[in-house]
This record gives sequence, C-alpha cells and structure tokens, in this order.
Amino acid sequence: MMRNVAKILGGAAMLAAIPSLGWAQDAPTLESLAANDAFVFNTLLFLIGGFLVMWMAAGFAMLEAGFVRSKNVSMQCLKNISLYSVAGLMFWVVGYQLMYNVSADGAGFFGTPGIMSFGDPSTDTGYSDHSDWFFQMVFCATTASIVSGTVAERIKFWPFIIFVVFLTGFIYPVVGSWEWGTGFLDRMGFSDFAGSTLVHSTGGWAALVGAIILGPRLGKYVDGRVNPIPGSSMPLATLGVFILWLGWFGFNGASQLALGTIGDADSVAKIFVNTNMAAVAGVLVAVIFTQLRYGKIDLTMALNGALAGLVAITAEPLTPSVTVALLVGGIGSLLACLTVPLLDKLKIDDVVGAIPVHLVAGIFGTLAVAFTNPDVTFMPQLIGVLACAVFVSIASAIIWFALKLTIGLRVSEEDELTGLDSAEVGIAAYPEFVAS
Amino acid sequence: MMRNVAKILGGAAMLAAIPSLGWAQDAPTLESLAANDAFVFNTLLFLIGGFLVMWMAAGFAMLEAGFVRSKNVSMQCLKNISLYSVAGLMFWVVGYQLMYNVSADGAGFFGTPGIMSFGDPSTDTGYSDHSDWFFQMVFCATTASIVSGTVAERIKFWPFIIFVVFLTGFIYPVVGSWEWGTGFLDRMGFSDFAGSTLVHSTGGWAALVGAIILGPRLGKYVDGRVNPIPGSSMPLATLGVFILWLGWFGFNGASQLALGTIGDADSVAKIFVNTNMAAVAGVLVAVIFTQLRYGKIDLTMALNGALAGLVAITAEPLTPSVTVALLVGGIGSLLACLTVPLLDKLKIDDVVGAIPVHLVAGIFGTLAVAFTNPDVTFMPQLIGVLACAVFVSIASAIIWFALKLTIGLRVSEEDELTGLDSAEVGIAAYPEFVAS
Amino acid sequence: MMRNVAKILGGAAMLAAIPSLGWAQDAPTLESLAANDAFVFNTLLFLIGGFLVMWMAAGFAMLEAGFVRSKNVSMQCLKNISLYSVAGLMFWVVGYQLMYNVSADGAGFFGTPGIMSFGDPSTDTGYSDHSDWFFQMVFCATTASIVSGTVAERIKFWPFIIFVVFLTGFIYPVVGSWEWGTGFLDRMGFSDFAGSTLVHSTGGWAALVGAIILGPRLGKYVDGRVNPIPGSSMPLATLGVFILWLGWFGFNGASQLALGTIGDADSVAKIFVNTNMAAVAGVLVAVIFTQLRYGKIDLTMALNGALAGLVAITAEPLTPSVTVALLVGGIGSLLACLTVPLLDKLKIDDVVGAIPVHLVAGIFGTLAVAFTNPDVTFMPQLIGVLACAVFVSIASAIIWFALKLTIGLRVSEEDELTGLDSAEVGIAAYPEFVAS
Repeated sequence: MMRNVAKILGGAAMLAAIPSLGWAQDAPTLESLAANDAFVFNTLLFLIGGFLVMWMAAGFAMLEAGFVRSKNVSMQCLKNISLYSVAGLMFWVVGYQLMYNVSADGAGFFGTPGIMSFGDPSTDTGYSDHSDWFFQMVFCATTASIVSGTVAERIKFWPFIIFVVFLTGFIYPVVGSWEWGTGFLDRMGFSDFAGSTLVHSTGGWAALVGAIILGPRLGKYVDGRVNPIPGSSMPLATLGVFILWLGWFGFNGASQLALGTIGDADSVAKIFVNTNMAAVAGVLVAVIFTQLRYGKIDLTMALNGALAGLVAITAEPLTPSVTVALLVGGIGSLLACLTVPLLDKLKIDDVVGAIPVHLVAGIFGTLAVAFTNPDVTFMPQLIGVLACAVFVSIASAIIWFALKLTIGLRVSEEDELTGLDSAEVGIAAYPEFVAS
Repeated sequence: MMRNVAKILGGAAMLAAIPSLGWAQDAPTLESLAANDAFVFNTLLFLIGGFLVMWMAAGFAMLEAGFVRSKNVSMQCLKNISLYSVAGLMFWVVGYQLMYNVSADGAGFFGTPGIMSFGDPSTDTGYSDHSDWFFQMVFCATTASIVSGTVAERIKFWPFIIFVVFLTGFIYPVVGSWEWGTGFLDRMGFSDFAGSTLVHSTGGWAALVGAIILGPRLGKYVDGRVNPIPGSSMPLATLGVFILWLGWFGFNGASQLALGTIGDADSVAKIFVNTNMAAVAGVLVAVIFTQLRYGKIDLTMALNGALAGLVAITAEPLTPSVTVALLVGGIGSLLACLTVPLLDKLKIDDVVGAIPVHLVAGIFGTLAVAFTNPDVTFMPQLIGVLACAVFVSIASAIIWFALKLTIGLRVSEEDELTGLDSAEVGIAAYPEFVAS
Repeated sequence: MMRNVAKILGGAAMLAAIPSLGWAQDAPTLESLAANDAFVFNTLLFLIGGFLVMWMAAGFAMLEAGFVRSKNVSMQCLKNISLYSVAGLMFWVVGYQLMYNVSADGAGFFGTPGIMSFGDPSTDTGYSDHSDWFFQMVFCATTASIVSGTVAERIKFWPFIIFVVFLTGFIYPVVGSWEWGTGFLDRMGFSDFAGSTLVHSTGGWAALVGAIILGPRLGKYVDGRVNPIPGSSMPLATLGVFILWLGWFGFNGASQLALGTIGDADSVAKIFVNTNMAAVAGVLVAVIFTQLRYGKIDLTMALNGALAGLVAITAEPLTPSVTVALLVGGIGSLLACLTVPLLDKLKIDDVVGAIPVHLVAGIFGTLAVAFTNPDVTFMPQLIGVLACAVFVSIASAIIWFALKLTIGLRVSEEDELTGLDSAEVGIAAYPEFVAS
C-alpha cells in the first residue's frame, strides 16, 4: 500500500471515503461529524494514556533494578518484562471479561469470564474497544508490577510468574469488577477514580501477604537489629520514579475516559495539575521529614514520597483544589515515611517500599475521597478498602501457600547468597564490575 | 509575542482568525470543519508517532550500551546519537525525494532525488508535509540504528558513519521507494505495513554483510569454541527494550497514516493491541524456550524475543486477530532464539543479536502477511524479501568493501583490546569503576 | 463510577450529555462544534507538550547523574527531583500570576503576584486554564534544572533549594513577564518563541553567577593546570540528552500554543522538523569540531552540541527554513564548543557545561532571530538579552551572596572530598562498586 495515500485522497475526498461508521454514506452531517470527532478524541485519550501507563512498566523495572543488589538485577529486569507480558495475555484470555462483563441482575461480585472479543467501532460506543482494552490492560499490568519489588531478591522466578497469572487473570479483575465493572461497590457509592484501591492496594495486599509468607531476606533482621541493604543504583531508581511520574499523567488523566468535549478536556487538564501537585507535596514532605527525623535527606524516601503522593491522589484527582491535592499527596507521603520503620519492626521485608507507597497511601487516598469529593461518603469508601483487604489477602495467601507447598517459593540459601542472577538467569547484570 | 494570545482571541474570534486554509474566509462550513479536523488529527498522529519512533533511537542506544563491554560504551553512545543525526540530514538532502518522488510511468525502482521541499498545508493533502517528513525520517534513522549494534566493539567511527550516510541517503530510500513510494513492489501487490522488510530487514542485511566483512571480535571464536562476551549492563539493555516497545506503538500505530475517522482511529487502536500482543508472545516464548533448552532463563533472549515479536508483526499489525498476532510474535521470537546459535556456528559475530531479531523475524513477518491478510498473496511477499536481500546485500557489500580498502573498517588489535572508548573517544564510560 | 460509562451513553447521547460549555443545550451548532474541537485540540497540545517537558526533568537528572562523580550522584538525583517539586509549588503560589497577570497600563516589569486561580473552561479562552498552567510550570522547572548541573559536586542541598525557591517564584517569572506576559520587551518587539532567553539564558546566568560565587571544585584548577574530572556514567548522560531532545519537541512545538487549525497544526509540525534539524547540526558540528581540534571525538561535546543546537533554535523554531535551522543549530553548537575551554581559562567550573549550552547558545539563538524572522529587528533582541543578563545576574548574585553569608553555600572540604552523598544524603549511588 502506498505510504502517503492520504495525499491523494485529499480533504474533500476523505469525507467521501469514510466508511459508514457514524457518517452518512454521502456527506457528513453536523451530528455525524460531532460523533466522529468525539470518537477519535476519546480513542486518542485511551491510546496516549495507555502508552504512558505501559511506560510505567519500565519505571517499575528501573526502580526495582536500582533498589536491589547487583547480584539480583538481571532477575528483576526479567521479572518485570515477563510480568507485563503475562498480564497482557491473562487480561485478554480472561481478565477483561471477568472485570467488565458484569450482569446488572447479579450480586456484582465478578463478571462472566471469557476471551476478549472486540466489537466493531461505531458511534454507539463513543470510542474504540481496542483502545479501551489496551488502556485497561496496562492497569492490570501495573498491579503486578507493584508486587515484584516487595518480594525481590529471594523469590524464585516461576512461582512468581504463576502468582502473576492468578493476580492478573483473577484477583485484580474480580476486585476491579466491583467498581469499574459496575459491581457491588459501585452500586453502593464507592468511588475510586483511577485505582488507589483497585490497582495500588490490590497490588499492595498481594505484596504484603507475599512478603510475610516468604520471610525476610537473609541478613536483613539479625539479633533484633535491622540491617539496611542498600540498592545497587540510585540513578536507575530515580529514573524509574521519573518514568512513573510521567506515566501517572496517563494513569489518572486518561481515567477521565473521555476527551471530546470542553468539559472533559478541562477535567483531564485539571487531573494533570492535581496529579503533579500531589507528587510535588510527596517529595517535599519526604525531604523535610527525613531531614528533621534522620539529619540527612533520604533519597529513597524522596523517591517513594513522590510515588506515595501519586498513589494517594489516584482515588480522586479531579474534584480537589490544588491546595487539597497538595494535602492529600503530602499526607500520603508522610504515612509512607512512617510505615517504613514500622514494617522493619514487624520484620516484614519490603525490598523497594511498595507496601508503604502503594498499600498505605492507597488506603489513605481512598478514604480521603470522602472529604475531597462532595458526592462521596465515608462508609462506602471504608467498605471498599476492607473488601479489597479481605479478598486480596485471602486469595493471595491461598495462592502463595499453594505455591510454597508445591514447587516452593524461595530459592535456596546458597542461591540467595550467590544471587538470583547466577542461580536462575545465568547472566550477571554488571559482569565487569567488582562488587565490594 | 504574547504567550497566551489564544486567550484574547477566544473561541469565536479564533474561527475568524483562521487563515483561509480549508476554512471559508468568513465562517466555517461543515465540509471545511470536517476537513480541518481531519487534517489536525492526521498531523497529530504523525507527530505523536514520530516522537515515539525518535525515542527508539534512545532505545537502541541503551540496548547497545548495555550489550557491549564497558570499554566500548561511550563509543556506542556516540555512534547512536551520530547516526540519528546523519539520518536526519541525509533524509532531508536526498532520501525523502528518492523514496517518494517516484514517477508513475517509470519502472518504479527509485524516485527522483533532491532536497526535501515542503508544500503549504491545505485540505488537499490531508496532513502537514512537515509531519509526514518527520515521521518518515525517524523510520530511516531506525534502519541505521539496527546496524550499529551488530558491528559494535570493532568498527572505527568514521567508516561506520560514512556507511550510515549511504544507508540513510541511498539504500533505505531506494528499498522504501519500491513499496511506500509506489514503486515496483507496490504495483505487484507486495505489502509491508510498517516495515518488517523495508526497515528491519534492510537494516538486518546491511548488518549481516557488515558483520561478515568485519569479522568477529577478538576472542569470540577461538579454537572452535564460542566464548560468550557478556554485556556491561543488563538494566540499560532492559531499559532499551522497554523504550523500543513503547516506540513501536508509534512505529506501527502511526503507520495507519490517518486518524481523523472512526475507522482509522479504531485501526490505530487495533494496531496498538496487536503490536503489544506480538511482543508479549515474543517474551513468553523466549522465556519458556530458554528455560527448557538451557535450564536457565536467558534475559538477553527475553529482551530480544520482545523485539523479534515486534519486528514480525510490523509487516501486518492491522488485519490479524489477537490470536494470530500472538502466533506471529511467538514464531518470530522462536526463530530469533534458534538463529542465535546458528550465527555462532557460522562465526558471524552479532554483538546485540540484531540479525536474529531484525532480519530473521523481519523476513518471517513479511512472508506471514500472505496468511494473515486475505488481500495479500505469497509470491509478491517472497519477491519483496528477495529483492531487498539482493539489493541491500550487494549495495552494502560494495560500500563496506570500499571502506575497508580505503580508510579501513576495523580498529587495530591493540585498540580493540584497549577498547574503542580510549582509542577513538578519549572518554571512558565508567571511569571510576574497576573492570574485572 | 462505572469505568466504561461512555459505552452506555454512546455517540448521539454524548452530544446531549455535554455540559453547556460551548455547546448549545439541545444540539450542537457548527460554531459550537468548531469551538469545542479547537478547545480540545489546544488543550491536548498543552498536555502533550507539558508531559514531554516534564520528562525533561528526568533528562536533566540523568545528564547530571552521568556527568558528576559517583560520590555525588545520589545528591544530584535528589536535587533534580526536589527542584522540579519546588518549581511546581512556587509557580502555583506566586510565579504564574507574577508572570502573566501583567497590567497593560503599567511599565510591564512584572505582574501582580498571587496564588494561581483557575478559571472555568469556556469557548472564550480557547483552551483549559489548567493545561496552560501545567505547560508554563514545566518551563519554570526547566530553568531551575539548568542551574543544578553547573553548581554540582560542591553546593549544599538546602542553599541550593532556597535559591530555586527564588529562581522559580521570582526571577524566572519576572523575566518571563517581560515577554510572554506582555511586558516591556514584548511591547518593544522582542521575540523569543519558546525561551532561548527567557528560560535558557535565565537559567544560564543564574548558573554562571552561582559558579563564580561558589568557586571551582577542589582539584579542578591546580597550579595553572586544568584537571579534567570525568563523569561517572556516559550512558546515563547520553540517555539524558535523548530525553531532552524528545522533550524539546514539546518545549518548542507546543509553544505554538494552538493546534486546532490547519495552519497551527502545520506550524507545530514545522517546529518539530526545525527543532530536530538544529539538534542534528549541533551533534554533527561538535563531532567534526572535536575530531579536528582534539584528534578524538568528544562524546560529551557531541551530547552538549545537540543541546546547544536545541537551545539556539528555541528562540525561533517556526520561521526558518530547514537550511537556516541547521545553520542556527550548528553555530550554537560551535559556540558552545568554543566556550568550554574559555570557561576553564577563567577558572569557572561548570560541571555539566550548562553555561556554554544554555547561556551562550541561548544568547546566540535570541540574537539570530533578527536574521531568521523577517518581523523581528536586532535592537529589541539585544535589549532583551541585556535586560535578562543584568536582572538575572544581579538578582542571582544577591541571593547567592545572601545564602553564602548566612547558612553558607558550600560543603566543607572534607565533605567535598568524601562526596555529597555520604555527607548530606547518607546513601551511596553505587554502594557495591569499588571506585578507583
């Protein structure tokens, strides 16, 4: 096919060449043109938002590659590209339908699973089914990304991947169906704009349960002392956070789900501003907090503070004023800062800080919606948080335990000391550099 | 000029202020508004697609920086930013016209070369000439990026750059003219949606011939044994692949060349889905294959598997169902996995695996179109693959040999052992780290 | 809220559901549809441009992380994420209004400061206020990013952050008001399309004065000799430049400020082409210059050459032909190449080369507008350059000195030798690697 075919058709001819999708066969009408443009804008929003959230997979990969020791970096890269792939497959095979194909008559606990089937585009849908699936799929992948950092440096590859199969094909879609699939939480008035609970807490609970069942890394908690285990590369971790911050504009902004009108476009823009400001507050609170508390500014907390701010605002990035968005992001970050030592006290070893960031800030952000969105009340939010907690914890525990009792979750002590890269990947991340 | 001038003009006034391009002087008509919006959508698609593909230049740079040894990393960075620059210059000086300015009366072997001249925008074109050139230029640059990885760690800077001058100004545009410039392959029914052959195989053949003429790196093949030479940084290579995967949404998606209608928007979205799923299958096949074949999961093959899946689907990302896209990507990855040891057997030293990924998966993807697009038959696809093979191999061989016989292609043995960074760049990539 | 609500509403219903913003309550008119679409296009341009420029913050972080020694990398990452956050806060608290809320009756030296208040969207504005603020805010952050590289490896964290507070809340908005806020330079005919002076020279002057007041790093200039201090990671620096190059399409392209018409869309596309070609020339000139001058190709100059080309074209990326854009970029790069040794002669220690790139190429680019835009004359350009020089230098000097005399600017000699990461951050960037 000719590469610049449009040149030949030209403007007027293009109108005639347009298939009978939303356009009169002969000439556009005002209504068909409006519907056509709205369809294109909405689809474009999903595609741009989608590729930005897809890019977050790289952000998690870099963040985690930077926060683990060099002997486990190749493994962390492998897990991240693999989990994104598994999520894509599972969300197509079963996840999307399980999440969105919810009967209005039933209890609204989950949809009817099945392979995704894409409808023909028409003005009735208002956007391309393909773009919608793509956008929702990358959210599913994000949920899995959250888990991989917490359980790093000791979990075997295949059990982790099998867990991701269940998380992305079953756990996440079920929780998602409750709200975004018009399930029971939605009917009750629960509100979670872009997924502080549905995505981040779901990932967070799965990570928490996994960390408890796996146990801490060797040498992390010895004789009542907490031994910090520094990550291998701060610039890669920093890059990861910048990628995630960028991706979050798509995550929250495109969750407006429509761009075709002045009102929607302004909402997307407002979400950009609030999302950015929550992260801003997250960074600044963590910088000031660690300076005051520890006498030095902890870069890892500044990075995680940005993420905690982003997670917290995700449940409602549209209704708050900038002042409120700063407050939500700042408190989310502060809670994350306070959770880090708490986890160490409980000897729960979260390698990258995903539990403080995604679970704690996610819960806070979800509850805060009751105070930032006048249409939302507290009880549905609390019920949503608890429902997610109970279901994801139990479902995750069953899968983690089943894996532990069958193929085993954890590498041998020897492999853990040598590093997962040599044990399971066979490729060192930095083969030429002498590790101290 | 005032920065927020639009605020003053306002909505209604803007209509009046619009130049007489596609709009009636006084007021818009339905036809002019439709033509205007289509123009903007199409141009925007080229610009977004263009910056995503431009970003792939960074992906290749990181992939290659990660796959070469630390003593050659600065050089690899230098080559990548330089080749992107040369491609931009050459595609403007001669390439675009050579590729697209093809006479309908001639044999359709190449166009009339000349400096690119940009037409005034009008509804006749349907998009901005500038956006079209930008989008096509980054494809040209991609072709050159493919070569630089294969011939790394032993080729001198200037001969490589001179080769890129010919590749981007002559070889790629000629091959491109056959199909996208409405040349003889297009007339014969050959179909290559976004360039499995035109971009990836062209780069692949040039790389293969270069690798053969250059010979392997010192120490790679000794006494009949293959010595693996591990790359310096797996996280950078992983980052590179994520960048490329992201960029591929622009590469394939914007190759739809139009966005203004419901049909086109849905097609772009479908291409996003299929592109993603081919890469997904590429990763999973490589992970499973290397686990079964080698007992460990090879991260470098998982990364190259993603790329091979992407290359394979590039020839036809629109017509396949998701199932077929998974199949195409998976087979592309498997073929790449099988080619790696084959090249070693032939003592062809491809530093980053560009030949398995871009050439082998590119050929497969092109041939597969006959089975995934009902409008395409096998013979034209085969002829396209062969025409590209013959022309690019011969043209590349002539240039590589001419360079070898004049200024020389390869650094001295001493420089190769010391590393190209110290020999030609004078700047170590990681000056503070002790290489083992 | 249901995630796929749009599906239910459908195309026709969506029209009715659209709020009364620019649409008649009952049905769209041709005028309201045109205004609606223009609003969405313009807002989308700001959002896409905005996230690309936000991404430049990551580019600066990577560039600087690569150009400082490993003992200061964590600090450089911390400074970059912090300065972006401070800029966001200050531009909201005071900056935007100080810059844009300029009375037409006054002298036009600055606007009336105040917290940003966002107006309701309407067809009168032509775009979302939120999107405009977001886009302008990331420009403000860029100005601060420029400074952090120059003063790296010796400045304390908090004084730097306090300087950024004044730079982003006061200095940059004042300079910006002169032109983009319709202040005195705008009234005089000064032209700076996307900020060669307003952004890049402002950052550059602040950096230059800072570098002079701080003094050079220990060991840089000893006994009349210049000791090169190589950066820790060339691939990270290269990645940073690719990120900046990508972001610059948003920086310059979206500074067209409108996308809704054929003319605007073509202008944005032309800006993409010229921006790219200026960087292309910047790379090639630096590569050739360093080869001829030093006998080796200096990667750091190739990288900075790209940036100098980009800075130079920023003052006028729209009117030049490609040939002229190449010339502007090439000369900008050459001037940067020539400035590097000059700074060393003056014992001004600019760690990353921000002064040659952002200040020198920025001045050149601003003056060159008189020759590339027929509507612009030389004197206003010169006056703009000088006004920026005088004001930013004096204001910066006052702040830098005030900080030096109170809390002190520079770390102790011992801390500088140990590295800022251990002194102020407490986290090594690469804890496992032995620095030579």
